[in-house]
Amino acid sequence: MPPHLSEADKADLIATAEALADAARAVTLVHFRTPGGIAAETKEAVRFDPVTVADRAAEQAMREILAWRRPADGIWGEEFGVTRGTSGLTWVLDPIDGTRGYLSGTPTWGVLIALSEEGGDKPGAPLMGLIDQPYIGERFLGGFGQARVTGPLGRADLRTRTPRPLSEAILYSTFPEVGTPEEGAAFARLARQVKLTRYGTDCYAYGLIAAGQIDLVVEAGLQPYDVGGPIAVIEAAGGIVTDWTGGPAYRGGRVLAAANAEVHAAAMAVLNG
Amino acid sequence: MPPHLSEADKADLIATAEALADAARAVTLVHFRTPGGIAAETKEAVRFDPVTVADRAAEQAMREILAWRRPADGIWGEEFGVTRGTSGLTWVLDPIDGTRGYLSGTPTWGVLIALSEEGGDKPGAPLMGLIDQPYIGERFLGGFGQARVTGPLGRADLRTRTPRPLSEAILYSTFPEVGTPEEGAAFARLARQVKLTRYGTDCYAYGLIAAGQIDLVVEAGLQPYDVGGPIAVIEAAGGIVTDWTGGPAYRGGRVLAAANAEVHAAAMAVLNG
Repeated sequence: MPPHLSEADKADLIATAEALADAARAVTLVHFRTPGGIAAETKEAVRFDPVTVADRAAEQAMREILAWRRPADGIWGEEFGVTRGTSGLTWVLDPIDGTRGYLSGTPTWGVLIALSEEGGDKPGAPLMGLIDQPYIGERFLGGFGQARVTGPLGRADLRTRTPRPLSEAILYSTFPEVGTPEEGAAFARLARQVKLTRYGTDCYAYGLIAAGQIDLVVEAGLQPYDVGGPIAVIEAAGGIVTDWTGGPAYRGGRVLAAANAEVHAAAMAVLNG
Repeated sequence: MPPHLSEADKADLIATAEALADAARAVTLVHFRTPGGIAAETKEAVRFDPVTVADRAAEQAMREILAWRRPADGIWGEEFGVTRGTSGLTWVLDPIDGTRGYLSGTPTWGVLIALSEEGGDKPGAPLMGLIDQPYIGERFLGGFGQARVTGPLGRADLRTRTPRPLSEAILYSTFPEVGTPEEGAAFARLARQVKLTRYGTDCYAYGLIAAGQIDLVVEAGLQPYDVGGPIAVIEAAGGIVTDWTGGPAYRGGRVLAAANAEVHAAAMAVLNG
């Protein structure tokens, strides 16, 4: 159970999320598009998933803000792990989701922030969250009654697409090779049934679902910090995010994000077919 | 042979290109991210390559500017075809390259503009050109001694990456299914040898080569208006763009764009291996 939150609490939590995203935006842009200027490590030699200086500096900047504004809240960060809190709330932080996009210069990576219920070893369900794309200057935010994007065209409400058959749906994923061979085969079945499948958008695709531009995002092998922000934003905009069997997605793993319950059910049937 | 151009001529031509891009930026943004507001046609039922109202309106806006500023120049536009000129110069216009990206909301589509030598049935070699991404507000321009990007981080010179082996190179293409099955197999051979292959960037990937972020873009089945702007920008930034056998790419078809001659040669050997 989440703690009782007053309207003032909720306003402060949204303002805090925006302050975190502002800080991460500034820090990540310092290192973006600077070829050779980043001391990149590689988590696994084969997978090419580099962690950049910007990734760590951005999480550090967000942690400093939380230590000052919300010292009783817990933190679950991609780079520096778990800091237990006492408030019953946990901030789930992914300072740069899509590091391969970041390193190759595409503005498809993003800063992901979610506020979750305390959840033991892994964060609980997200109450509010955001997806921020610093280079475009675009922020998708959802939760506590808000569902909005601010960006180059100003501010707009977020609202997912109306239902349409799979044959009219647009599907996104980061790579054509989704997860294990078995997961990849399920994804390929779905890709053959939709109108259009596109790749390479990293977390930005979740924002496009919330903005009513596309119908489905399917991914596998995700971490809790990869999904908390997207879940909050998409659900606030009227969409639905689960694992591939309809269970909760906020612990990561296989994720099926959909614009509405109808296209969600149709996609789930194909993934498990 | 291109006509003799004075420095004043070149400055006017660059200013004209920028004016065309400014007009197309305004018109294309009117219809971007407006779900359901676009009367999309489909060129071919199978390929899902819709032509939007925005596409036509943007080319019309550019043609009006050219009729006023450069009435003696020819025009070769994606939407409205060929208008013969008398100056020996032809403007090659693709008002929205990447219509599938445009319709699904990704800021990877772009306005492509090239100034080419007169070339009979198809435009000749590009002398100057640009890639504009209206939503990000980013413009890559090259030719007549210029190679620059203007965007969210201000203005910067464009310079392609230094040589590195294929095993360290980043390759982009729009779709994993590149061209015919034979072309797709050649692409797959190359994709297996590079460090990272990513998809879904439309014309934006050519800007990333010019900006020194990635090493290779490989595509097939392109039209002259798909490549003129990118060729001008990449060559001005120190890169090289040819077909898959090293011949000219400005007539379209199979395109191999590379950051430098070394990675170009290595990629060409694999594509033809």
